[in-house]
Amino acid sequence: MTSLSKLPIRDDLRGRSPYGAPQRPVPVALNVNENTHPVPEDVAADIVARVAAAVGGVNRYPDREFTELRTAFARYLGHDLTAENIWAANGSNEVLQHILQAFGGPGRTLLGYAPTYSMYPLLASGTGTAYVAGARDADYELSPETAVAELREHDPDIVILCSPNNPTGTPLGLETIEAVYDATPGIVVVDEAYAEFMPDGVPSALTLLPGRPRLLVSRTMSKAFAFAGARVGYLAADPAVIDALRLVRLPYHLSALTQAAALGAVAHSDEMLATVGDIRHQRDRLVTELARLGYTPHRSGSNFVLFGGVDDPHATFEALAERGILIRDVGIPHHLRVTAGTEAETTAFLEALAALGRPAQDDAVADDAPDRVRNAPVDSDA
Amino acid sequence: MTSLSKLPIRDDLRGRSPYGAPQRPVPVALNVNENTHPVPEDVAADIVARVAAAVGGVNRYPDREFTELRTAFARYLGHDLTAENIWAANGSNEVLQHILQAFGGPGRTLLGYAPTYSMYPLLASGTGTAYVAGARDADYELSPETAVAELREHDPDIVILCSPNNPTGTPLGLETIEAVYDATPGIVVVDEAYAEFMPDGVPSALTLLPGRPRLLVSRTMSKAFAFAGARVGYLAADPAVIDALRLVRLPYHLSALTQAAALGAVAHSDEMLATVGDIRHQRDRLVTELARLGYTPHRSGSNFVLFGGVDDPHATFEALAERGILIRDVGIPHHLRVTAGTEAETTAFLEALAALGRPAQDDAVADDAPDRVRNAPVDSDA
Repeated sequence: MTSLSKLPIRDDLRGRSPYGAPQRPVPVALNVNENTHPVPEDVAADIVARVAAAVGGVNRYPDREFTELRTAFARYLGHDLTAENIWAANGSNEVLQHILQAFGGPGRTLLGYAPTYSMYPLLASGTGTAYVAGARDADYELSPETAVAELREHDPDIVILCSPNNPTGTPLGLETIEAVYDATPGIVVVDEAYAEFMPDGVPSALTLLPGRPRLLVSRTMSKAFAFAGARVGYLAADPAVIDALRLVRLPYHLSALTQAAALGAVAHSDEMLATVGDIRHQRDRLVTELARLGYTPHRSGSNFVLFGGVDDPHATFEALAERGILIRDVGIPHHLRVTAGTEAETTAFLEALAALGRPAQDDAVADDAPDRVRNAPVDSDA
Repeated sequence: MTSLSKLPIRDDLRGRSPYGAPQRPVPVALNVNENTHPVPEDVAADIVARVAAAVGGVNRYPDREFTELRTAFARYLGHDLTAENIWAANGSNEVLQHILQAFGGPGRTLLGYAPTYSMYPLLASGTGTAYVAGARDADYELSPETAVAELREHDPDIVILCSPNNPTGTPLGLETIEAVYDATPGIVVVDEAYAEFMPDGVPSALTLLPGRPRLLVSRTMSKAFAFAGARVGYLAADPAVIDALRLVRLPYHLSALTQAAALGAVAHSDEMLATVGDIRHQRDRLVTELARLGYTPHRSGSNFVLFGGVDDPHATFEALAERGILIRDVGIPHHLRVTAGTEAETTAFLEALAALGRPAQDDAVADDAPDRVRNAPVDSDA
């Protein structure tokens, strides 16, 4: 074996480490914002039956246009969308990679608002797109004024808004999305990976699509749909955007098995999403109980809670891991992030955390979130 | 709907059309070099059982390192390879994309020897890598001298050798691979997508791996393995190369269902590959019979045959398509390419072609392959 440094690797990759959320086998894994409820048995049976049918023809290339799946996603999303408005790929990371390949690349810039999803700068780098991290308001909120001021300063080709935001959980108002769209001639991506966990009645960015051909709304089956292992992300936009993505996707990028499995899951979307109410309840319980324990949880519209007031995040992370509970150190000083699991998992986490003792009550620790945060932490969340 | 031209798409994509082998429903599809034999029933049953088990945990992210699958590929390939030598992705196109992201990109160049697999220039373009098409010898052969002369002229960072070559079927001697490796400080990729169709006893480029850390040998399950719909390509190389690819792959790029299905197929590799003998036989029959019909087939080590002497390829393609037989116009003047199917499919093709009448016997048509071909045709093969 030779060493990596002796290979003619690209200069910008030298010294880098690969992305790596810890994959430790623990009883309570609340670290990567999965839906910890398994797929219901009857739904699993239907998915397997559809995959079995697909295996019968697996010697042939799959439908390159995955038309049946696009039709199913359009029906699930509603808002008068049709298959012509839909794109999909192996996870929303690949959807965003396609967007960057079509609209970003060398000489172009992506703007995100830090702290946000840690894959944005990595995906930008992988496609030769420059990445700039704009600032947020206090408590990780993002007002129209702040969002537009950062946009004017950086003049990006693509803006990405994570709604609700990962790793902070912060919901984003539609007025910010509208203001950003009006202020840029570029592409505006709204990453709604966690949208299903928002309170009922709060409108999605999908409602803004009519008349906005540069607006792209991405979704994933990895979170509410409990389908992280199947790797399916999708997107709704103007049909011209879908044409652009066709130019950069690898041919036959979605396997016949993926298409069949995803069709099965979407056909049972009511059942697949039945856990969302429970998860929201556990999330709200986390916010209440973390505050009671003396931590400072942030408001969340997603299936996880970011909480401050942690004296030594690394020590707390390791102490919980020793007790079989995996949460996430997302690189924000004095903060940790925890996924809302089942009631039992959430209880296990809260009890283990309580057993570690009260957090330091020093104000400088408890209230450590800076008013404006410009640099994305070195996070590695999924 | 807006028009694509009004979107801020990258300049180098303007006016492009997406890759598109025709996907027409016909009784005899011999156009994309699939294995036309379905997966045996008992193997399909085992694959489905493994996928069913994976669906039980599909709410969780998959094993990012796909260690079990890498171990299985190492065992299948032999040559003392271990899991540390193996990479895999969603089709060999994605494997090559990872190679280009790690070792190519802006300011770097990929050299292929035209005519060759049409995705090479597209994958280069998608990763910002420059592509140069080197020349071949007469009859699409590639001698060490010609390969090295082109290499010296173009000074590429990465060289890709398709062995056997698509779309010409031409086998490639190991002496050419050795000469290219010795003549470049860069990465040398040998694309062995069709290696299983070579005659028994002909050594693979895998035999050259020891002591050559810059040599990468890629394979696919889409051809001999009859698994095109599952989208699984893989690669063997020095472990340092695998480390480099880890830096650019999207996290969790191989789904739990893909890993489970591929493990099932590899576990039954003997049965999955049992059709290879039949297919080689039909390929050799195509060569014999096409010559008898007055065409000029080229020698082939793969599961398809390129044949010249076609007066009007477009007209012949369409006349066969009307009869329910789909083959491929790969953009080489007076040539067409046909996949070796089952005996019945091969017979249907040969009878339909014979019924179209004798090809023109003009020498200028029958012997139209230029001695050296520099420009890759606008092909769209899989």
